[in-house]
Amino acid sequence: MTLLDGKKTSEAILQEIAHEVQAIKANGGKVPHLAAVLVGNDGGSVTYVNNKVLACDRIGFGSSLIRYEDTVTEQELLQKIQELNEDDNVDGFIVQLPLPKHINAEKVIESIDPRKDVDGFHPTNVGRMVAGLNAYLPATPAGILQLLQRYDIQTSGKHCVVIGRSNIVGSPMSILMSKAAYPGNATVTLCHRNTNNLAYHTRQADIIISAVGIPGLVTADMVKDGAVVIDVGTTRVQDASRKSGYRLRGDVDFDAVAPKCSFITPVPGGVGPLTIAMLMQNTLRAAKKEVYG
Amino acid sequence: MTLLDGKKTSEAILQEIAHEVQAIKANGGKVPHLAAVLVGNDGGSVTYVNNKVLACDRIGFGSSLIRYEDTVTEQELLQKIQELNEDDNVDGFIVQLPLPKHINAEKVIESIDPRKDVDGFHPTNVGRMVAGLNAYLPATPAGILQLLQRYDIQTSGKHCVVIGRSNIVGSPMSILMSKAAYPGNATVTLCHRNTNNLAYHTRQADIIISAVGIPGLVTADMVKDGAVVIDVGTTRVQDASRKSGYRLRGDVDFDAVAPKCSFITPVPGGVGPLTIAMLMQNTLRAAKKEVYG
Repeated sequence: MTLLDGKKTSEAILQEIAHEVQAIKANGGKVPHLAAVLVGNDGGSVTYVNNKVLACDRIGFGSSLIRYEDTVTEQELLQKIQELNEDDNVDGFIVQLPLPKHINAEKVIESIDPRKDVDGFHPTNVGRMVAGLNAYLPATPAGILQLLQRYDIQTSGKHCVVIGRSNIVGSPMSILMSKAAYPGNATVTLCHRNTNNLAYHTRQADIIISAVGIPGLVTADMVKDGAVVIDVGTTRVQDASRKSGYRLRGDVDFDAVAPKCSFITPVPGGVGPLTIAMLMQNTLRAAKKEVYG
Repeated sequence: MTLLDGKKTSEAILQEIAHEVQAIKANGGKVPHLAAVLVGNDGGSVTYVNNKVLACDRIGFGSSLIRYEDTVTEQELLQKIQELNEDDNVDGFIVQLPLPKHINAEKVIESIDPRKDVDGFHPTNVGRMVAGLNAYLPATPAGILQLLQRYDIQTSGKHCVVIGRSNIVGSPMSILMSKAAYPGNATVTLCHRNTNNLAYHTRQADIIISAVGIPGLVTADMVKDGAVVIDVGTTRVQDASRKSGYRLRGDVDFDAVAPKCSFITPVPGGVGPLTIAMLMQNTLRAAKKEVYG
């Protein structure tokens, strides 16, 4: 069994990007710049956004953090997005989700210029991804593709079972794994809350990708010997022995499942660390105008 | 075994739309108008487009047919699309595919205003479909959903195997069948040319949707008793006994498969007739500004 080390992989990617930024600077080019818009003071969101800004610093990107109280109006937010769309110094930007209920998140996402939508959430990027065109891929699916690729895991003709149909992970993941590409070319089954007998499907899988947020959902009896298991779940469960009072648990019953696997991601340290690296990669691609020319 | 009668279903939908057009007229509203752009003289394309114009006439829509020789430049075509985007009389329009090789079809599709893209091929409509937002659905997948719905076929929790991953049928079909909706909520497996042992997957299916264009691909031994079988294939095969010299064959070995099915589409007369009805429905939705407001 090989552990898919997301931390190490993420570091490697960030290093590669840092080198490329140095080369851009050496050639007198424009340093990539990521802007992040954060509304409110949710602890998780603040941490995520800070980590994104820190990653920019580390690899030599410029960054801006734009913060609003959660009383900001939708109109104010849309106005700021318009400014960012038009700001030539900003190559890409994100609006950290979730947003307060009085703001229509879909409207906000659709107001972002697809050419700067480095989260890959705008319908135009999603549609281009489905059509197999150049697009910003959402960070988590893109990170999983990187793991598969960098560990040289075969996917063509394999049976991949994706659990969860969310717009940001399960659904795009199922689409990407079935594309005529590597990683991809897999026969893909998408399972979700309406699936009857989940175990029946997962037992047939060469590759399982679980993204539902139910700790321990995938048990050993649900996994075929030699399977590749990718665990996207990160649920906080109480743990009095930790200083924080909680620990992260994945969708997969790791201790029991790992011995059966050829490859498996740990939680934490698996898919999670890749997401920031993928955001940085999208920002680099935006700066290089690789996607929309 | 029940035959899914696409011709009858299509007629019913066209009647419903015709009644709605009469009501719009009676209320002094604007009659829906579809424009079609046809490049070249390919026999199939000419027939398809003519049938679309005839359907408009029958149900009371306005229509325009814009024809170009296949020597038209990409620039001329893009200019016409711009005009149609800006023409308030045109609610929706299509550019008949395929286009000559010197014209970039993707560029043409992306130049269509998504609000008028009644073929549902623009990345923005595809992305909105994936996100579960209001969108113009591509005609063939939309037609299949209509058949399932109007024959009251249960889909929730069923295992649906889609064969073929094309951008206009297989891929969107697999996405739609897995959405939290009716028809939908199915566990969906997407198979394609890289799938190992197609029969292994289809034998497990409650619902098979085949869209590959290989006559007789789906044989009786590949189908579970009681399955629902939707055949999107329409391949011309030589037939000296016909005046035309050919007949249409589906992906499914109908005579052998039909007795095992609960429901099955014939070819022709199954999915095919629905596509024009769905185009008309999208045009009506465009005229009523139901999708983009």
